[in-house]
Amino acid sequence: MAKIWDKGFDANQRVEDFTVGNDRELDLRLAKYDILGSMAHIKMLVKIGLLETEEEKVLRTELQNILAEVERGNFRLDNDAEDIHSQVEAMLTERLGEMGKKIHSGRSRNDQVLVDIKLYLREEILQIKEGVIQLFNLLQSLSEQHKEVLLPGYTHGQIAMPSSFGLWFGAYAESLVDDMHTLAAAWQVADQNPLGSAAGYGSSFPLDREMTTRELGFATMSYNVVAAQMGRGKTERILAQSMSNIASTLNKLAADNCMYLSGNYGFISYPDELTTGSSIMPHKKNPDVWELIRGHSNRLQSLPNEITLMITNMPHGYHRDYQLLKEVLFPALETLHRLLQMTCFMLENISVNKDILSDPRYEYLFTVEEVNNRVLQGIPFREAYQQVGKEVQAGSFRAPKEIHHTHAGSVGNLCTEEIRKKMERASAVIR
Amino acid sequence: MAKIWDKGFDANQRVEDFTVGNDRELDLRLAKYDILGSMAHIKMLVKIGLLETEEEKVLRTELQNILAEVERGNFRLDNDAEDIHSQVEAMLTERLGEMGKKIHSGRSRNDQVLVDIKLYLREEILQIKEGVIQLFNLLQSLSEQHKEVLLPGYTHGQIAMPSSFGLWFGAYAESLVDDMHTLAAAWQVADQNPLGSAAGYGSSFPLDREMTTRELGFATMSYNVVAAQMGRGKTERILAQSMSNIASTLNKLAADNCMYLSGNYGFISYPDELTTGSSIMPHKKNPDVWELIRGHSNRLQSLPNEITLMITNMPHGYHRDYQLLKEVLFPALETLHRLLQMTCFMLENISVNKDILSDPRYEYLFTVEEVNNRVLQGIPFREAYQQVGKEVQAGSFRAPKEIHHTHAGSVGNLCTEEIRKKMERASAVIR
Amino acid sequence: MAKIWDKGFDANQRVEDFTVGNDRELDLRLAKYDILGSMAHIKMLVKIGLLETEEEKVLRTELQNILAEVERGNFRLDNDAEDIHSQVEAMLTERLGEMGKKIHSGRSRNDQVLVDIKLYLREEILQIKEGVIQLFNLLQSLSEQHKEVLLPGYTHGQIAMPSSFGLWFGAYAESLVDDMHTLAAAWQVADQNPLGSAAGYGSSFPLDREMTTRELGFATMSYNVVAAQMGRGKTERILAQSMSNIASTLNKLAADNCMYLSGNYGFISYPDELTTGSSIMPHKKNPDVWELIRGHSNRLQSLPNEITLMITNMPHGYHRDYQLLKEVLFPALETLHRLLQMTCFMLENISVNKDILSDPRYEYLFTVEEVNNRVLQGIPFREAYQQVGKEVQAGSFRAPKEIHHTHAGSVGNLCTEEIRKKMERASAVIR
Amino acid sequence: MAKIWDKGFDANQRVEDFTVGNDRELDLRLAKYDILGSMAHIKMLVKIGLLETEEEKVLRTELQNILAEVERGNFRLDNDAEDIHSQVEAMLTERLGEMGKKIHSGRSRNDQVLVDIKLYLREEILQIKEGVIQLFNLLQSLSEQHKEVLLPGYTHGQIAMPSSFGLWFGAYAESLVDDMHTLAAAWQVADQNPLGSAAGYGSSFPLDREMTTRELGFATMSYNVVAAQMGRGKTERILAQSMSNIASTLNKLAADNCMYLSGNYGFISYPDELTTGSSIMPHKKNPDVWELIRGHSNRLQSLPNEITLMITNMPHGYHRDYQLLKEVLFPALETLHRLLQMTCFMLENISVNKDILSDPRYEYLFTVEEVNNRVLQGIPFREAYQQVGKEVQAGSFRAPKEIHHTHAGSVGNLCTEEIRKKMERASAVIR
Repeated sequence: MAKIWDKGFDANQRVEDFTVGNDRELDLRLAKYDILGSMAHIKMLVKIGLLETEEEKVLRTELQNILAEVERGNFRLDNDAEDIHSQVEAMLTERLGEMGKKIHSGRSRNDQVLVDIKLYLREEILQIKEGVIQLFNLLQSLSEQHKEVLLPGYTHGQIAMPSSFGLWFGAYAESLVDDMHTLAAAWQVADQNPLGSAAGYGSSFPLDREMTTRELGFATMSYNVVAAQMGRGKTERILAQSMSNIASTLNKLAADNCMYLSGNYGFISYPDELTTGSSIMPHKKNPDVWELIRGHSNRLQSLPNEITLMITNMPHGYHRDYQLLKEVLFPALETLHRLLQMTCFMLENISVNKDILSDPRYEYLFTVEEVNNRVLQGIPFREAYQQVGKEVQAGSFRAPKEIHHTHAGSVGNLCTEEIRKKMERASAVIR
Repeated sequence: MAKIWDKGFDANQRVEDFTVGNDRELDLRLAKYDILGSMAHIKMLVKIGLLETEEEKVLRTELQNILAEVERGNFRLDNDAEDIHSQVEAMLTERLGEMGKKIHSGRSRNDQVLVDIKLYLREEILQIKEGVIQLFNLLQSLSEQHKEVLLPGYTHGQIAMPSSFGLWFGAYAESLVDDMHTLAAAWQVADQNPLGSAAGYGSSFPLDREMTTRELGFATMSYNVVAAQMGRGKTERILAQSMSNIASTLNKLAADNCMYLSGNYGFISYPDELTTGSSIMPHKKNPDVWELIRGHSNRLQSLPNEITLMITNMPHGYHRDYQLLKEVLFPALETLHRLLQMTCFMLENISVNKDILSDPRYEYLFTVEEVNNRVLQGIPFREAYQQVGKEVQAGSFRAPKEIHHTHAGSVGNLCTEEIRKKMERASAVIR
Repeated sequence: MAKIWDKGFDANQRVEDFTVGNDRELDLRLAKYDILGSMAHIKMLVKIGLLETEEEKVLRTELQNILAEVERGNFRLDNDAEDIHSQVEAMLTERLGEMGKKIHSGRSRNDQVLVDIKLYLREEILQIKEGVIQLFNLLQSLSEQHKEVLLPGYTHGQIAMPSSFGLWFGAYAESLVDDMHTLAAAWQVADQNPLGSAAGYGSSFPLDREMTTRELGFATMSYNVVAAQMGRGKTERILAQSMSNIASTLNKLAADNCMYLSGNYGFISYPDELTTGSSIMPHKKNPDVWELIRGHSNRLQSLPNEITLMITNMPHGYHRDYQLLKEVLFPALETLHRLLQMTCFMLENISVNKDILSDPRYEYLFTVEEVNNRVLQGIPFREAYQQVGKEVQAGSFRAPKEIHHTHAGSVGNLCTEEIRKKMERASAVIR
Repeated sequence: MAKIWDKGFDANQRVEDFTVGNDRELDLRLAKYDILGSMAHIKMLVKIGLLETEEEKVLRTELQNILAEVERGNFRLDNDAEDIHSQVEAMLTERLGEMGKKIHSGRSRNDQVLVDIKLYLREEILQIKEGVIQLFNLLQSLSEQHKEVLLPGYTHGQIAMPSSFGLWFGAYAESLVDDMHTLAAAWQVADQNPLGSAAGYGSSFPLDREMTTRELGFATMSYNVVAAQMGRGKTERILAQSMSNIASTLNKLAADNCMYLSGNYGFISYPDELTTGSSIMPHKKNPDVWELIRGHSNRLQSLPNEITLMITNMPHGYHRDYQLLKEVLFPALETLHRLLQMTCFMLENISVNKDILSDPRYEYLFTVEEVNNRVLQGIPFREAYQQVGKEVQAGSFRAPKEIHHTHAGSVGNLCTEEIRKKMERASAVIR
């Protein structure tokens, strides 16, 4: 068996290729945050006497230059840079000599990546919040717009009771409030400063972590340095859970849309550009976009479990496995933003069928209503029920296809404003 | 092929056995909440004129009698009761005649079970909170008690840097704060009144849902009746996610304990009664309890995915599938309470080894410390690093086995009080 | 803090309760196999000179007595028996004195439970095979019985092309063949003798493992004793994967049934006893049984992941966590048997609607057929397509609602016999 | 709200971007198989009279040209090609005019992608098989090479019994046999011809599916056209399960390696190029490659569940969601090939520590051996056990640190040849 160590260089290359993996691309997203973290760190190093004020100025100026490159989109990781941290340090050293390495004093790559990720995820959570709020507003507006249009409500997949487009759109809006509570939890977990935890066991330098917490705008600190390190995986998972909740709501909305668009329902339609069809099968309008939203949302729903597999049964402390959390989570964040956009895009173009209930298949939709109406007119329930039952049997049942619900959250009283306030309260934590 | 419809009764029995499943046992947990829900409902029925004051009194008295039976533990579901709702109604009807059925006016089994579950889960969340706080307090107390005792810290599973029992116990305490944020989200999702949503499409009766919200002590309402029904599955999943987060923390603590107890570490020990051993293998003390905590916590971590499978790709509205959410979630709640108790029980009995670092295998644990110390004494980092490197190579490296970390969250500054305050804030929502 | 070791007995009790868990009940299923394993073991001990022939006779007789108790259903685990192995040994010792302990020579509880589980799972796999074959046969028979009845076929959830009940039933039969391949893999993994692996590192006794392999009817051996131990978890997972495949087929069949039963389709029906309904909503026939089959099948589909969480990231060797594999897998086996039975039970009672295609919503179902027919008559495809397109636009499109497919596997040529042969080949391994 | 349909092109573009997704890149892997499928199809079209012999020749020549481009690596999907099928058809049409479209007669994109995937997965399975066999052979060779070197065996993570490197390496080889059984099941599921199923409901053309089955080298056919379509998702999932089994074996091997490399064990080592270290912490050799193998193998283990989420609860028939199965599975196949290679690469470079057992921490490793030895010398077990127990207590226990196991699969009798034969049998199906 040929031994690899006969060919040193190849071994190194092979190991490096495998261990760096996709990091050179994934870490681009962290560049901005890595630089911001370093800026806060060096400012603090001055305060505790480990860096000269002059040095800090020079380093800061150069970090700002690099940040400008990042923002202009022409920052790249060199082929010999293992990760974003080495790239930034290498650039500084190339430009400033030995002094460039001082940004690393009292730090470790472990706490660099922890800070980068917390800062990055905070931004991402803000963006998710925005996307959810946009969808929420659209749903509420559609709910008000179509509140008069009735729709069959289903239980067990069977035609059951009258519902309305007002209820339908509004329900998804309110459902997003529940998801927002979990996004707020993810925010609170992300909004804690891990800077200063070094390799997960702290540092003998007298780091001023309160100062970096303020500088980076974190609400609080991951105090215990071991806990800060244990936040790796946990932070990602809690955010992934929240993403999976939003995805679950989109999934159900997509499932409903696919059903409502089917020729067996025909409750809604979309302009031709948003569906695919066939000139010889005019009734066929395939809901490809909704099907893909449904499919993608399932991928997002598998995320928390994927992360769990990577962290379970492992003792505390950094393990290189955690590097892969980036490739699990980062592309999924983009997918979620995209799904929220596409969901809005589709809903902006929905047309609702205003004449659904004239189809005879929905004729018994109002039987329960009618029993209740008779009860409200003073007939005992049992008697009212028997009357209606007999009329149904005899084929003589007729009821006005309208409903007069008045209680909170019903067809006639959507509580749009109350739900909006709930969303405001739920999302207020994230800022 | 023999057709089943030749034997009517058997068909019914077979279908009933399959569809009722474990519900007669599982629903016992809901009995109390079903009765409380009915009490709030009938009080409201009086207000909106659908029940006489006198009737309400009679019904309330009888509901209180049944509640007393529940609390005495001698309430059972009869073999012909399909679920808790039918059982309670059947008991009322048996005792009060036709009037017993009036508790069902303007309701449906769908909103009965929704209310029962929300009320039940609120109680369960309170109990989980209590268990977590108890563990948190114990961990903080152990952290303070053993803060002087050093321990090797590991990265990549390799001996890396000095840590301490103070850090170790304290880290798990702080980690529970993150979990508590997600439990708080679950609480906010559970703490919403679904009563009045009927079969998921509301009612033509003028139900006063604000009143029942107040009566049942809910912070707010699931306004939109379709959203209230969509809360089924979502509520369970969000709670399960939070349970999985706590379980993940217990899992890591258990993994650490198993490792620390191994003969290759020997960092901690437990009294003989809490481990299993062998008189001919005196060093073998199997950490069975911790292994089972680790295993059970994995079962809990699989919960959210199990629930997701049951609800994904389904249009809105009630589906009978959701009945099974009870058998997924309810036993898991018991498991979590048990795991929290057993974790406390074990930790109350832990002994820490105070002399770990004298083992020569840990001799290079202090090299980074020593480099940093020299830097603090004014030697440039690069030079300090080279000095220590040479001493290590030459075998002459000696460093005092002690550390003087001062920054927030480090070995020398555990921030126990600050972490306690974080926990107070995180858990304050749940009450 | 009150220390637990002040109250020895309680500590022991608490630990025992937690560690034994549900094992006293779960292990009942293993009793038969534990005894069979011991019988093979003692026979072998005689051969290698570690047991007298006379001793073996006495032990065997008593083991047979216990087996008879198991088969009569009056075998129980005592409260002080930790597991099935201790229970059997305790019974032998009670009845035969010290000699009873000799069944344990050269063994460990680790290899006892391995043998028990392999033997038990073999039986279970045989039973699953039988259930699958029964369902397969029923589906094939229904496929032939209803092969003339047409049905709309859907793509993207949209009405697309003509299909038939012959295709529909037959498709599920053939799909089960794929599942059977995975069940055969599970069988091959289970059908290996681990007896002799002791605690996972073998024994210094000259055990004759070929002999016990033959005695227990295993096709081969888990040779390497470490591999035999690593089979724990792996065996369970591979079987669970296969169960999840069958469950996935049942899930899709259930989803189809729920859809076909909906008032918006109305393709099939079931006798009233098998659905739930309402006298005032005569069209509502809730498919509760199918919904519960769908839900249960999702629970089964979550199994492999649950097992994976329990075994991943762990070094080899026995860990007590694995005890919980029993409570994950054993009840799921019962569920699967039940689901297969209920699926057969429902399908035995299905009625198919023979007049589905007269509904005008299916009028364009035959456009592709008609284009193809014209192509077969010599008209170029493009022209035929344009002709049909124009007729559809003009509302003049008419086509006979019948199809003449002839190729293998099509409506007109179901290949029932060929599929039956595939199933025979796929299932032949399991015996 | 600005409506999208005011700006037609943008809507089309946006929908196309979203729906095509990554397909232009992913489908490159299918190009070869799409062309092979079309070649078989047109040959058959000639036979059934739907294509002229001359036309077939021209089409075949051009398909071969395109195949050559694929093999030279300069085949790309144009920006306006939605998928591989349109790209190939567009190229043919560009080069041959209207005749190019004839490859599509009697087909649908649904059966094109089905065929492509089955053919592609067959190739991939063959490659996985090869990778597994290579690792298997290496493990067997290492097992033989190091069979004399003893190692502590662990149970409950505690030092328990003597084991050996022979057992350790050999165990992973044998464990791969179980995985191979599941890969064989995946092969049997993949090795079935779906060509002719069209959009999932067959075709009115008299397609000769037996002929294309032979042409494409499939062992059998997915007969029923609806079953052929149901194979989408099922095929991917069954393969993913098998991949997850292999990944699980790699995961455990990686976990063992990380543990054995830790300073607290020190059982093995690797050349410096294959680990990462530090000049001031000479004992620290981070097992980054193994940690990443462990992490990646967890991602692979999450695959089957991810696929399950995408297909569960859905009625039969094509849904656009299934397009995403490609982006779930295809990159994972590459990962698995890579993991198998890196695992071999690492193991080729392993050094085993030959003097592990001289460490006093392993002194009681031989107590059970010693008890057994005395039993073999005629001392009753109970007495032997008590003797050894007393010696251990008294500190006088001494035993030779060697073992003489002889039974099949033990330290002294690895059964390497028998295990090799099992692997041959298990893998023979795949070819």
